Amino acid sequence: MTEFSIIERFCTNLGSTHGQTRLSVGDDAAVIAVPPGMELAISADTMVESVHFFPEINPALLGHKLLAVNLSDMAAMGAEPKWATLALTLPSVNEQWLGAFSSAVNNMASNYNVQIIGGDTTQGPLNLCINIIGLLPKGKALTRAGASSGDDLYVSNTLGDAALALGCINGDVQHNDLNLEQLRIAFDAPVPQVALGLGLLNIASACLDISDGLIADLGHIAKQSEVSFEIDIDQIPLSLEYQDYIVKGGNVDLALSGGDDYQLAFTSSSDHRAEIQKLSQELNIAITNIGRVVKVNNKAVALFSDDEPYVLKNKSGYEHFNG
Amino acid sequence: MTEFSIIERFCTNLGSTHGQTRLSVGDDAAVIAVPPGMELAISADTMVESVHFFPEINPALLGHKLLAVNLSDMAAMGAEPKWATLALTLPSVNEQWLGAFSSAVNNMASNYNVQIIGGDTTQGPLNLCINIIGLLPKGKALTRAGASSGDDLYVSNTLGDAALALGCINGDVQHNDLNLEQLRIAFDAPVPQVALGLGLLNIASACLDISDGLIADLGHIAKQSEVSFEIDIDQIPLSLEYQDYIVKGGNVDLALSGGDDYQLAFTSSSDHRAEIQKLSQELNIAITNIGRVVKVNNKAVALFSDDEPYVLKNKSGYEHFNG
Repeated sequence: MTEFSIIERFCTNLGSTHGQTRLSVGDDAAVIAVPPGMELAISADTMVESVHFFPEINPALLGHKLLAVNLSDMAAMGAEPKWATLALTLPSVNEQWLGAFSSAVNNMASNYNVQIIGGDTTQGPLNLCINIIGLLPKGKALTRAGASSGDDLYVSNTLGDAALALGCINGDVQHNDLNLEQLRIAFDAPVPQVALGLGLLNIASACLDISDGLIADLGHIAKQSEVSFEIDIDQIPLSLEYQDYIVKGGNVDLALSGGDDYQLAFTSSSDHRAEIQKLSQELNIAITNIGRVVKVNNKAVALFSDDEPYVLKNKSGYEHFNG
Repeated sequence: MTEFSIIERFCTNLGSTHGQTRLSVGDDAAVIAVPPGMELAISADTMVESVHFFPEINPALLGHKLLAVNLSDMAAMGAEPKWATLALTLPSVNEQWLGAFSSAVNNMASNYNVQIIGGDTTQGPLNLCINIIGLLPKGKALTRAGASSGDDLYVSNTLGDAALALGCINGDVQHNDLNLEQLRIAFDAPVPQVALGLGLLNIASACLDISDGLIADLGHIAKQSEVSFEIDIDQIPLSLEYQDYIVKGGNVDLALSGGDDYQLAFTSSSDHRAEIQKLSQELNIAITNIGRVVKVNNKAVALFSDDEPYVLKNKSGYEHFNG
């Protein structure tokens, strides 16, 4: 099977079809039209074997997660995902693997109304790179730079399950008594918060997705907004499985510093509290106030429990390189 | 050095700065504005060690070529390159290597007025993926689908030097008497034909860049335009170095079927001959009529020399997989 026939068979017609797509896969480039009054959000995320996933991963889960982490970046901007390119580097052509992978990409893209409009397929160690493009009303992007002292700090759903699952798999966490099967869902098949991101346009003052851990990611908002945060760690929303882990001797640290959650963290003026509650109900997504934005000080993110400073036992945030 | 500091130090501020860029590196996504009346061309190209380049490659040449092959896709669409994302997968952090690489990316991007607005940096076997985005006047993209029977067929500059250089390096070609140093320039540092692509808007009926070899690439136009081609191989433009290779016993086949040329091949109605000559003079780029478009028949690309059919000695076109 040749490069051309792989691309044609598995990558030509993935996801939704948009009227705004003038030209999709099959030319030197795709061509898209942008509706008046809209801007584009563009983001790239790569996944590498043994770094972002285990070599034996189910290709359907890999396809799901690859789209999910990229869709999460659109959610974090408040953008409506529309188009993506898929650059696949594969060690060899395994049609069964490719079929399962591309079917998962197709399902995930279709579910979120994304069209795969191009990409590249080449030979080499397994490496998957998606560029995703979404539409934003002009000037409305949810950036990291808009948080103000006095704003509330929120997160969506629950934190820490993905990091706890990874800890169980790596052997860092004793898991004989834990519901690893349930915890793994958060790690293997994260759900990007696209609808929430869209709902937060005109509400959130700053927003990002928690991919490197709550504390590390809030550090980005702190830096770009020139503010600090106070977090009440007793308010961090935890799943039943994570609560069970705490009952059995664990602590909240993985929920504070573990990566791969893909929930949204955002700040908002207290004027918007009623709207946020309404949004939470409409979307059936838990949105929890976990702290507040304060004037910039020497600690970007300060943790409190019962008004006493709380010190992490684990390191904060995921780093790809530690050289 | 952490992932964040690598990104900040080497990838934050590469290439030109555009007023149409609302948000560049440093958020969950970049945000760009598209001028009224314009559409976007989007393309992705990956380069993998030992597949697209030798492991010992000079990082400056690698940065140049990575941009060049992506710019070439914009040229092939007649698009004005504007933005790119850069996804780097690196086995380790070598600051000297990264400095040379990012400096080359910066120079090449700046020369072609491209801003690097985002990307990703991760650990793993060396893999470089660029997504490039360009502006096109609405409805004017140079696709592969517009060639008509009777159109002239043209190529820019000369063909075959990159493939001949690769043959010399691989040992497939005896090169003791050849000017390998000069030939290598075409392979190592291709020049994307961006100005020519822009000049061909409203002139070319179909266009692409010759990255997989003239015959294989014309096969794409043949298929999508539902036409065939007749090529007069005696008209194929060759460099002095390639001509020297023929004098010393070589043949034209690498110029017909070798990859990596990144010249443009395009078709155009004979009405445009004077304009094409003028464009060639203005841009100081050789543009050679090498054949014609004919009605679709059982041979997508037919080769002739002195009106006699010509049979290739080598295989046609570069394939990444042959499974």
